[in-house]
Formats: sequence, structure tokens, C-alpha cells
Amino acid sequence: MKFDYLKDLLGNRFLDEKIDKLQYAYDATQKMYMPDCVVLPKNTEEVSKIVKFANENKIPVVARGCASGFSGGALNIDGGIALSMELMNNIIEIDLDNLIATVEPGVVNYDLQVKLKPFGLFFPPDPSSWKFSSIGGNIAENAGGPKAVKYGVVKDWVLGLEVVLADGSIINIGSKNVKDVAGYNLTQLFVGSEGTLGIITKALLKLHPIAQGSQTLQATFYDMSLAAKTVSDIIKNKIIPSSLEFVDHQAILTVEDALKANLPTDADAILIIEVEGSKFQIKEDVEKIVQICTENGAKVKIAHSIEEEESIWLARRSISPTLKRIADGKLNEDIVVPRSKIAEMIKKTQEIAKKYNVLIVNFGHAGDGNIHTNIMYNTKDKDEEKRAYQAMDEVFDECLKLGGSISGEHGIGITKQDYLERQVGSRTIQLYKQIKYAFDPNNILNPHKMKL
Amino acid sequence: MKFDYLKDLLGNRFLDEKIDKLQYAYDATQKMYMPDCVVLPKNTEEVSKIVKFANENKIPVVARGCASGFSGGALNIDGGIALSMELMNNIIEIDLDNLIATVEPGVVNYDLQVKLKPFGLFFPPDPSSWKFSSIGGNIAENAGGPKAVKYGVVKDWVLGLEVVLADGSIINIGSKNVKDVAGYNLTQLFVGSEGTLGIITKALLKLHPIAQGSQTLQATFYDMSLAAKTVSDIIKNKIIPSSLEFVDHQAILTVEDALKANLPTDADAILIIEVEGSKFQIKEDVEKIVQICTENGAKVKIAHSIEEEESIWLARRSISPTLKRIADGKLNEDIVVPRSKIAEMIKKTQEIAKKYNVLIVNFGHAGDGNIHTNIMYNTKDKDEEKRAYQAMDEVFDECLKLGGSISGEHGIGITKQDYLERQVGSRTIQLYKQIKYAFDPNNILNPHKMKL
Repeated sequence: MKFDYLKDLLGNRFLDEKIDKLQYAYDATQKMYMPDCVVLPKNTEEVSKIVKFANENKIPVVARGCASGFSGGALNIDGGIALSMELMNNIIEIDLDNLIATVEPGVVNYDLQVKLKPFGLFFPPDPSSWKFSSIGGNIAENAGGPKAVKYGVVKDWVLGLEVVLADGSIINIGSKNVKDVAGYNLTQLFVGSEGTLGIITKALLKLHPIAQGSQTLQATFYDMSLAAKTVSDIIKNKIIPSSLEFVDHQAILTVEDALKANLPTDADAILIIEVEGSKFQIKEDVEKIVQICTENGAKVKIAHSIEEEESIWLARRSISPTLKRIADGKLNEDIVVPRSKIAEMIKKTQEIAKKYNVLIVNFGHAGDGNIHTNIMYNTKDKDEEKRAYQAMDEVFDECLKLGGSISGEHGIGITKQDYLERQVGSRTIQLYKQIKYAFDPNNILNPHKMKL
Repeated sequence: MKFDYLKDLLGNRFLDEKIDKLQYAYDATQKMYMPDCVVLPKNTEEVSKIVKFANENKIPVVARGCASGFSGGALNIDGGIALSMELMNNIIEIDLDNLIATVEPGVVNYDLQVKLKPFGLFFPPDPSSWKFSSIGGNIAENAGGPKAVKYGVVKDWVLGLEVVLADGSIINIGSKNVKDVAGYNLTQLFVGSEGTLGIITKALLKLHPIAQGSQTLQATFYDMSLAAKTVSDIIKNKIIPSSLEFVDHQAILTVEDALKANLPTDADAILIIEVEGSKFQIKEDVEKIVQICTENGAKVKIAHSIEEEESIWLARRSISPTLKRIADGKLNEDIVVPRSKIAEMIKKTQEIAKKYNVLIVNFGHAGDGNIHTNIMYNTKDKDEEKRAYQAMDEVFDECLKLGGSISGEHGIGITKQDYLERQVGSRTIQLYKQIKYAFDPNNILNPHKMKL
């Protein structure tokens, strides 16, 4: 039998019953591709043997963490082996002297944060999926999150990796050293490579002290362009908030309709701003931010308790869940534009929504120009579905015209592969293919993702 | 004639007289390799034509900025074309809304800082060579500097690049967007690639607001291991200084002998600590640091004026210049170990110095474990020179045993190429070679550097 070797190697950690495979056939895109089998390795040596076997037999291998990705990175689109890292979920070391954690890829982001908290430390990348996404997945997709405006994204916090290459060999790249210029930076090449170059089996993560305190503000604007100007003004005033999120008019309506939370439905945008630091620093920053917001015509609310803070964040956090009330189909994009182009981009999406007669809801990370553009459609209405995709196409075009990127957090996977070349150009795609070939000549590692 | 095409293209910006070529035959290693000719392009199109010509005729091309590198990256070791970027020194844009500078590679780091200062901004990487090193060179070598402990190194501040590939094609990688996960992170592959993968012709640099203020402290220790413990204790107390430098006993002696600056010659180490932030933040941090230093047995001096600050930095800044008084030969290494291993590493260098009967002077960036280990020898004493190299070999070994890296800032170039495989392993070197081949199949771009 084709997979006897894996069965012998892994025993009951090899699965090929249909009911088991079904559980590993999905990710957050809700598309379904059945793998031929599922393997649950417990250590690097097993991963090495699995990949070596797959390479010798030219069988696709798709690594998956918690399958919370929005771009299809964890889907076995060509069948083959679903390599679940869920049992490799040990936090190997928390090095307090050097502020570095060594973890296996299956560790859930939240579980790591819980372990770090008693030491007053955290791992800054905080994708919205942090409670149910794995560090391995976070690294493979170079995840972001609200705190990225201050702390950057996953790539800024990965110092080194242990990787199993396509031929089964194990390499260690990077080190615990923040400064390390010996050789090409392969660590950064693996971050965001979506499982196409190797299987991450261990990661060295930089940690950061938790700030002494934080404070959250809500600023309500009646003109999106003034909200966008406020974002630039805050940064220009040398304040880097720990979160700088926005919710557009349509998103406010959606949440208010669902929750009756007394949101200002006549507003054009809400900014949610969080600053971190010492008591003094927070006071200084909050005063300045209130001044900037007011000068730009906003009504400002400052949270003075955890309850008030929660109530401010409610609007932002409830958007995704409440979108389902509008329509069952959703093109969930995460375009990015330079901070200064946010208002222009939002206006473009509104024009595109009108042109194609679809509803577009925008929210996201204003501080780094990362906009979650949700194009809603009824899956039973094939014409609306078609118009939604046409609208998406035009959203990408307008985003690129403004110097943006088609993905800030979710990755390319299968959902955005037809648009990648538009952004990076054909010569760069050719380089990607040559790099992919250098690492994986038989094209077994997550094949045909990212148009590779 | 072999170079007629270049002469026609560039006119008097093509040089092949011996006296001219000689000026481009050196870098800071003080090794000499004559190029066959020197070209001074003014724009990307010219660079593209030069490289295309070189590729078609299989002639080596070595890009150089200000030739301040310590690892030989800018040397034409196989002859060929010295491609000086000195005329491509325009600061193209300072984008205040997005805090991004667009610069040509020949811009000197210091000149950029001068231009940024009136806007209250700076480009954080500050290699000691900042007054005479170019941004292009800083990127090619992934330079560091004293501020790296707080702000990271060059790779953390480069968002995108325009690059001329070996075949002359021009690509733009990365973007102004801090979040951008579309495709492999080629930008980070180019940072630190030492001119072996392509020629950087433009760079998008992230900028940072200049801190409101700063304060400098000097802590004198009579036991190196307590100085090292202090470094870890400061970080553990969640204070990230903007500089955290150290000078070892031998370096103190060297500077005192030259300058008679009243340095504590009986001390085992001096830490120089700078904190940045608001007035309140600085006060809080300084109080805590003084307490930590004192608990570890140090005598602390706080600078209350620019003069006092200068006098504290004098010891650190004077080491390199005064080393020449000891001996005319110097193996100038920049090893890194995890912060917590600094004391152990310094002790090892002292044992190695004894074993090989050479003088070793250590100083550097304690906050990130980056130690400038200077092994001194008399160039006329061939036996001492041999012992110096043997000592260096053992320093690298001990550094790697402690989980370190053979280079934190200077790069591999030619001076460290025989040691790279020891750190990264043969399988990784093989990957480097495959990547190099994918980008530069004729091996014309800075050939035979980094053991490629």
C-alpha cells in the first residue's frame, strides 16, 4: 500500500479514514480539499522521515497548524499528506536572560501568551485568531494584528528556525542573537513562505516586556478623510499607539443593527486608539491625541475602566461575527495602502460598491494602512457573486495604484494567487519559482500555492 | 577593446587609469585588489546597462559605497568592474505622512540623518562608520550600531528595494507598507547579501521620531561577570536602553595609556548606558538602572551636561583609534553571543589570549551580545601573526559553542568565509549556493565572497 511506511512509522497517528480526513480538509476559507491521509508527528525526526518519504514518492505535503488561515495555505489542493503539527505544541524554553522563547510550531499563540504573562512578557504579534491559531501558522503566513502599528508583524519577532527541508534534511537557521549577519537571511525567507520551502519544526521568538499600563480612546468622525488625517497627525506628532483601528460607516451600521449598542450610526468612521507605557507617558500621549482628534472634528470618549474599554472595543470586535447577518457570502480581503492613502482607498471601495451594486464593509488597522475590505454577496445569487468578484478585482487594482499590497496579513495561498503577479511583476515571480525550485525541486511542499 | 561599451556609455565616468583604479582597490580591511576598471553610474538605467554588459561578457561586478567595510565586501578580488555608487546619492523623498525615506544607495548615513533632523526624525541604524558609510553599504552588510539594542539593525528598517538583477532587469520588491505579505520576502534576502544577488539602486527606509530626550550613565565594575549580570538585570527589569555598551579591562588600559583621561585602570569593565524617552520616562529608568548597577557592586556616574556625556563616551569612542598604539596588526572581529553569555565569552577570550600569547582587547555592544574582539599583533612578527590567527580561530569556536554568531555587523566577505560553514552547516551553505545560482547563474556579482 502507498502509505504503509507512514502507518508503520506513526501507528495511530496516521489517519486515512474518510471521517478523520474530513476534519483536515478545511481551513477558514471554508473551501474543502480532501487529503489522501493525515499524519500527526511528535518530533522533528518524524517530520523528517515523513517529508523524505513524500519526496522520494513525489507526494504533496501540506503542513497545517490550527487551519485558521484565510487564504487557503493549509489546504491539500492536490491531495497528498496533511501534516498536522498539533502534537508538536511544546514551549521548550522561556529564556528570561535573553527574552527569547523556543517553541514548537503547534503552540497556540494564546497559550504562549498565558505562559509568558507571569514573567511580565509577551510575544507581540496578535492576529485576531490568536486564541485559535498556531505559532507555526503565524510564522508561515507572517501574521499581523492590531498591535503591529507599534510592534511590527511576526517577521520582526522571529530570530531563528529549525526547518525540515524537502529532502528530509534538518537545518537550523538564525540564532538567539539579535545581531547575526552570517550568510543569507534564510529565516526571513521562511517567514511568510506559506509552507512552500520547508516545514518549520521549531522557532526562536523574541519577547517583549508588557507595558506598565494602557488606555483606550474612541474618536467618532463625521468625515472619513478627517479620520484618516488624524491617523497621520498622531504619527507625525511622534506618538506610536499600540493600536490604531478604524471602523467605517457601513461597519458601524452592521454592528449597530445586530447589537443595538448605541453606536453613532450617522458617523462616517470610528477610530479606536490604544496607547501603552508608563503612567506619565500615557497621560502625555492621551492629552495630545485628544487634542489632535478634536482639532479634526471628532467626538472623543476615553475609557476609565475595563468595562468602558470593553465597550469601546465591542464595535471593532463584533464586525466579523455580525457580517453574517448581511449575507452568507464574503470576500474577506486585507489590502494595505500607505497610511496617508487610507481615506482615498475607502472612497474608492465605496465607488466600486456602487458600480457593482454590492455591499462593501471596511474596518481594520488604520495605523499601518491595513484595511479589511469585506465584499458581501448572497451565495445563491450567482450574478451577485460574479459582481462581488469583479469588485474585488477592481479593489486590488486601485490598491496597487496607491502603492499598496494585496495582502497585509492573510497571505496569498490560493485565494489571491491570480493577483500576485499584478503586484510584484513577472520577473519577481520568476525569482520566486527559481527559489522554490532550489529548495524543493520535486515541488512536493504545499504545491501550487502562491502561483508556484 | 574589452570595455569600449562602458567608455561610450559613461564618458569620463569610466576610469581605467592605474592611479584612478588604485583609489577603488581598497576597503577598511586595508587589503588591496585592483579592479580592471571603475564605473560611476548616475542612475538605475546605467547600472542596468553596466550589469547586462558584464553578464553577457562574464565579467565580475563589485558594487561599492564608501568602502568602509571590515570584511572585504567591496573588494574586486577577481578583478573586473568596480561599480561605485557614489554619484547615486540623492535623497529622493522624505514622506512625513508615512515616515518613510526613499534614497539612492550612495547617500551617506550621516547626510540622511542631517536631512531628517529638522523633521524630528531619524534612521535608527547607526554603525560607528555612520559619518563615512553609505546606506547602500549599510543595507548590503546589514549594519548595526550602538542603538541596535533598542531599535534593531538595518534589516528592521528597510521596507523595500529597487534592485538590478544579474541579467540587467530591474525589480521593485517590498513597498511603503509596513505590512506586506505578498510573495517571498526578497527584500530581507537582499539585506545582508553583500552584493552577491543584485545591485541595490534605491531603498525605502522606515524612519522613527527622535526621542524627547536622553541621559547617559557610566557604571564601573570590578568584576566582569557582575557587569554582564547587570546587562541582563536591566533588560529583565523591562528597561530597553538606547545604548548599552561595554569596555573591558584591557580596553580601559589602552585608552588610559593614550589619553590620560583618568579612567579607572583597576576596573574590570565599564558599562556605558544611555536611555531615551520623555523626561518622566528617563527619570524612572535612570533611577532603576542606578539601583541595579549599585546592587551589582558598580560605581555609577550620571552625565548632567553634554560635556559630561561626551567625557563618558570618550572611553568607548577612543578605543579603535588608540589600538594602533599597541600594535600595527589587528584582527578586528565582531562576534555575538546571547546576552547572558557575555561574561563567559570575555573570560574565554582572556584564556585564549594567554594560551597564544597575544593581546586581546574587547569592547562593544553588551545589550545585544555583540563583542568587538580585537586580536593585536605586530605585522613584522610572522610568528605572532600566526598565533593571532590561531587565537581568532579559537575565539570563533568558543563563540559558536555558546550559541553565538561569527559576525554581528561586519558580514562575511572574504575575511570570515573560512568560518561560515562552521556556524551554519554544509546543508545551509548548499542552499546559499542554490539561491546564488538562481539569482546569478554566471556568478558575476561579487563572486567568491561568503564562500559562494
